Amino acid sequence: MSDTLNLENAIEILLVEDNPDDEELTLYALAQNNLANQIHVVRDGAAALEFIFATGSYAHRNIYNRPKLVILDLKLPKVDGLEVLRQIKSDPRTQLTPVVVLTSSRTEQDIVESYQFGVNSYVTKPIDFTQFAESVQQLGLYWLLINQPPVR
Amino acid sequence: MSDTLNLENAIEILLVEDNPDDEELTLYALAQNNLANQIHVVRDGAAALEFIFATGSYAHRNIYNRPKLVILDLKLPKVDGLEVLRQIKSDPRTQLTPVVVLTSSRTEQDIVESYQFGVNSYVTKPIDFTQFAESVQQLGLYWLLINQPPVR
Repeated sequence: MSDTLNLENAIEILLVEDNPDDEELTLYALAQNNLANQIHVVRDGAAALEFIFATGSYAHRNIYNRPKLVILDLKLPKVDGLEVLRQIKSDPRTQLTPVVVLTSSRTEQDIVESYQFGVNSYVTKPIDFTQFAESVQQLGLYWLLINQPPVR
Repeated sequence: MSDTLNLENAIEILLVEDNPDDEELTLYALAQNNLANQIHVVRDGAAALEFIFATGSYAHRNIYNRPKLVILDLKLPKVDGLEVLRQIKSDPRTQLTPVVVLTSSRTEQDIVESYQFGVNSYVTKPIDFTQFAESVQQLGLYWLLINQPPVR
């Protein structure tokens, strides 16, 4: 196995985020608790699906080697976040993967549809920098250290 | 409306726990962050279903007045926790309610079945008193202050 493959199989968090500022802030916040080492970032919904389903540029991955957490933005290029969520949660091979939506959308429709599609948790991005960082820290601590994911 | 009804409609956490020691410790931990005020405790699976579905001794409740969080033990008298989870998550009126399993079970079968039934998160009870309290505090903070539940 190549080093790339080894690294990608050890991924604990898949971050799906197209906004560079939000990506930087999320990685910064996770790093405060040493949770940013095994994170992989994709910047559109199509790349997220390729990673999750081990296709395209991620065809060398093992689909059953699930990340412990997917942090998913909703407004994404190429494939919308809700569609990414729907596909993850409707396929028996991937549906057990914990997915947290992290979005600036506070519309009730996005919240309800996310829960209907089976999101594990829905978190709105606080506008304030410090509060954003604190929310992401709590999110990372909870899903990586408190939550028990299904064994890979 | 009676005072009882008003109080029960304001419930934020439904705790389903039959072990008195675990109940006491959970309430103690939540109280550390002032999260234990609007909590209601039921001690078997049948009572949990009556509360959630507004039947039996909870027939006066509004079924759409969902708690922000259900903390659900698995080994329960009368109706098993997995069956409670299955019923909550298979009824359109209740399936959006966030449910966290909090259990001493670390068996892969319980973990996988919980996720298959649609649990939002699975947390194992640490054996150590202090760690148990810390896990419950993180759990309460995350689900009441960070997670965005669907509007009631």
